Amino acid sequence: MSPNRLEAFSDGVFAIAITLLVLDIHVPEPMSGTDLAGELGARWPSYVAYAVSFLTIGIIWINHHAMIRRLRAVDHEVLVVNLLLLLFVGLLPFTTHLMATYLKEGEGDHLAAAIYSGSFLAMSIAFATLNWRILFHKTQLAAEAMPEARRRAILTRGVAGLVPYLIATILAIVSAYVTLAICGAVALFYALPMASGSEGRASPA
Amino acid sequence: MSPNRLEAFSDGVFAIAITLLVLDIHVPEPMSGTDLAGELGARWPSYVAYAVSFLTIGIIWINHHAMIRRLRAVDHEVLVVNLLLLLFVGLLPFTTHLMATYLKEGEGDHLAAAIYSGSFLAMSIAFATLNWRILFHKTQLAAEAMPEARRRAILTRGVAGLVPYLIATILAIVSAYVTLAICGAVALFYALPMASGSEGRASPA
Amino acid sequence: MSPNRLEAFSDGVFAIAITLLVLDIHVPEPMSGTDLAGELGARWPSYVAYAVSFLTIGIIWINHHAMIRRLRAVDHEVLVVNLLLLLFVGLLPFTTHLMATYLKEGEGDHLAAAIYSGSFLAMSIAFATLNWRILFHKTQLAAEAMPEARRRAILTRGVAGLVPYLIATILAIVSAYVTLAICGAVALFYALPMASGSEGRASPA
Amino acid sequence: MSPNRLEAFSDGVFAIAITLLVLDIHVPEPMSGTDLAGELGARWPSYVAYAVSFLTIGIIWINHHAMIRRLRAVDHEVLVVNLLLLLFVGLLPFTTHLMATYLKEGEGDHLAAAIYSGSFLAMSIAFATLNWRILFHKTQLAAEAMPEARRRAILTRGVAGLVPYLIATILAIVSAYVTLAICGAVALFYALPMASGSEGRASPA
Repeated sequence: MSPNRLEAFSDGVFAIAITLLVLDIHVPEPMSGTDLAGELGARWPSYVAYAVSFLTIGIIWINHHAMIRRLRAVDHEVLVVNLLLLLFVGLLPFTTHLMATYLKEGEGDHLAAAIYSGSFLAMSIAFATLNWRILFHKTQLAAEAMPEARRRAILTRGVAGLVPYLIATILAIVSAYVTLAICGAVALFYALPMASGSEGRASPA
Repeated sequence: MSPNRLEAFSDGVFAIAITLLVLDIHVPEPMSGTDLAGELGARWPSYVAYAVSFLTIGIIWINHHAMIRRLRAVDHEVLVVNLLLLLFVGLLPFTTHLMATYLKEGEGDHLAAAIYSGSFLAMSIAFATLNWRILFHKTQLAAEAMPEARRRAILTRGVAGLVPYLIATILAIVSAYVTLAICGAVALFYALPMASGSEGRASPA
Repeated sequence: MSPNRLEAFSDGVFAIAITLLVLDIHVPEPMSGTDLAGELGARWPSYVAYAVSFLTIGIIWINHHAMIRRLRAVDHEVLVVNLLLLLFVGLLPFTTHLMATYLKEGEGDHLAAAIYSGSFLAMSIAFATLNWRILFHKTQLAAEAMPEARRRAILTRGVAGLVPYLIATILAIVSAYVTLAICGAVALFYALPMASGSEGRASPA
Repeated sequence: MSPNRLEAFSDGVFAIAITLLVLDIHVPEPMSGTDLAGELGARWPSYVAYAVSFLTIGIIWINHHAMIRRLRAVDHEVLVVNLLLLLFVGLLPFTTHLMATYLKEGEGDHLAAAIYSGSFLAMSIAFATLNWRILFHKTQLAAEAMPEARRRAILTRGVAGLVPYLIATILAIVSAYVTLAICGAVALFYALPMASGSEGRASPA
């Protein structure tokens, strides 16, 4: 199979998952005496979680393109590991909703936060695994040969990108806010203009 | 990255956001003694908001193509600002639903209207920002060189397109109906056949 | 703009609208003493409406391709009339849900049926309008010149395709079942293998 | 019509159906005294059904590409049978939700399981039918001629892929868990790396 069709299908899943996030932001029921400003304000975790997940999926999409661009063909294993990556991307509307719902609750907030950053972690592990297979075991599929030092550097940056999500998942024990802050910081870090031109900065996974 | 993949991903988000709008039009619960015609008639804000948002997203999609067509390549900053534009496009099903729900309510209608046109304003600002970066700071990415006067004219038209949304957002203090009418008029203005062939008229952002 | 991007965006809206139809088929709430077979059986209008709308959107998609294939470029008017066509396609998940919900109700069923076939009628009118503009007023955009007799034949078949939906909408006064049966018969007629190779049969709009 | 547009539209429906699956995983309502871990744990059928359906749609997508790649053009019948295949794919979010909802219920679980694997069976029958028409009756559309033995082998493998779903549907009489286990085993079997390079293993339908 040509990488083009893999890209087109993956782009579809990324675009749909990123757009489905909005379904988890609910419009407050109008009732007499409703203070809409207060109601909307109280839902700020939904907006923050929407923005963080939106940026994170967007950045993974950018990196996915860089990864697939290195291939001239794909085989069954690449297709299946890519499917696993998409499976975790597809879960993000659920984990984002879970985080937004429980962030301010006294109970369940730590677990929800751990699942939220855990889903980013799982997505990043699938991404790094796919990159590792492509760079080191699928050299016959490579669009052009790369020296091993370069391939090792790409993979190292990708694995380094897992660390913040691992920390965020562990720190969910302390506070759900800390977890959200770390995930947001990672998204901002990779999105900020300073990262421009540096594939390393652009790669959270 | 080639502009083609940016276009394909953005088209996906535009197409999904525009089609998700329908999920906010609810079918009235059937109950004995229900006057379906009356129930459906009372929901006219949903249909108007659907039509206005649908046309607005459609016009932004048309303009987006004109903007990206000027590029022969995209860099990290273009990708990220485009992602910000898509983030606001992705919010429109929520702000449209909010507007439709509160338009006829005595409370919250002004705020809902301000958020509705405010989301169009935010989308248009992101669009103008992207256009400004592309036209004046990314000339190395341009598909072909353009005289500065022409670039300035394109940007001026885009910034002028912000004004109606700014006015609509301010006038939400007066009446939510005024805000909706202005947003609808903007959509009709750019969609009307007279605008045919004129890129200026076709560009609300 | 090249017709390719118009096709890609339209394909996106067709594909999303066709897939969103499933969201209107609800899973019965499990309760002690629930007779699931009975509950699912009672929802047969949902399945019939799903199948009819799915086939109808699919056939419109096939015809849309035939129409756009005749163009070598698109202008602002083609984009806007196409957007209007997509606006009605985007409404189908709502009108399908309305039909499925009210078909068996004693009240509102006639109106729901009229709106259901009315939405197919509106979609077909938008389609015929677009075809008419393309065939008779946009000859400068045509991929290749066609004799007027051939263009007239294509348009006549398209307009003839409106008639069943007009009849179905009128007969909603008599019975919602009659309306559904006509819409289903139209979908089957165009889908049946006998129609193979005949563009006329393949064109409901 | 060129196979490319058929592929693009089908890819869209596959990508949307696979991503809509997540909408059926619900976030537990936060209530004082809620044990979120327990609530989430009790919903394991949702996660298993999500994973099985996601992998199954993904594998069908891979096989769909292999099938369409053999064509240089498509005719009306191919379009319509493909539409029928997509109709069943589009139903999977519903049947998956049904399975996840009733798996642990004392009543309705057998029927829900039969419908779940039955929808995979229907999808596979549509797939095999399309393959049969393409391989044996549409040779004029083939990208390149294939010896009959090879065509017969491809079809036989496809029909063999129906058998597990038929067994799973019948065994729903015994236990819904058995049905789910068989469907999961089929998905894993085709996804496992050993299958790499073997089109036979990659083809459940």
